Amino acid sequence: MLDSRCIQIDELGDERGLLAVLEANKIIPFGFERVFYIYGTKENVRRGYHAHYKTRQVLIAVSGSCKVYLDNIKRKDDITLDSPTKVLILEPNDWHEMYNFSSDCVLLVLASHLYDPQDYIKDYNRFIEVYA
Amino acid sequence: MLDSRCIQIDELGDERGLLAVLEANKIIPFGFERVFYIYGTKENVRRGYHAHYKTRQVLIAVSGSCKVYLDNIKRKDDITLDSPTKVLILEPNDWHEMYNFSSDCVLLVLASHLYDPQDYIKDYNRFIEVYA
Repeated sequence: MLDSRCIQIDELGDERGLLAVLEANKIIPFGFERVFYIYGTKENVRRGYHAHYKTRQVLIAVSGSCKVYLDNIKRKDDITLDSPTKVLILEPNDWHEMYNFSSDCVLLVLASHLYDPQDYIKDYNRFIEVYA
Repeated sequence: MLDSRCIQIDELGDERGLLAVLEANKIIPFGFERVFYIYGTKENVRRGYHAHYKTRQVLIAVSGSCKVYLDNIKRKDDITLDSPTKVLILEPNDWHEMYNFSSDCVLLVLASHLYDPQDYIKDYNRFIEVYA
């Protein structure tokens, strides 16, 4: 079950090197209003600890690796992101926590909505209320 | 003149590590239809060698570093991308070549349009005809 939430995208390699592409509303079933990347993560940090009301997200470790713990109430998963072509799609109801960041990890996140603090569910009990 | 084409975005650091954000039509004056990243580039590779008719792009070295040669006929620039918070915006009429990739370079590109082979100007003489 480890990686059943991930999709594998093509690695477009040639004699120059490698390249991978994500297109909005094609490979990924939504548009990218916000792009952010997490890097320089300190040792033993675990971050995230939230779900959303509406935001959908794509997570890719474009450098290094990390793990993602997911809980959508029906199931819990621990997913390893360790390749630029391994893409994890998070639904709004995925409570997520990222951990085990390698020192060179760059975790790229493509989000379907602009930043809105009202769209974060940071309290686990509230998460259960909303999605159970 | 080296970096006049770049904008510096905020580094949102705290005790966990670092994070940087790009929002469509806010910091960046267009939407992101296509996201790709160039990595594992071999030594001494120079790539790009094209301009566009309509695609606008954002380039960021989210890991490592590379250089970008730009030519919009009016001026030529050699820009160093070496920070996750240093953002280069390319207009369609920017002929661009990327080189000097560090072995750990991950060059993230956010493009305003989906892939369309008709939107590439790969012949320099044609580029001059179109934009001179």
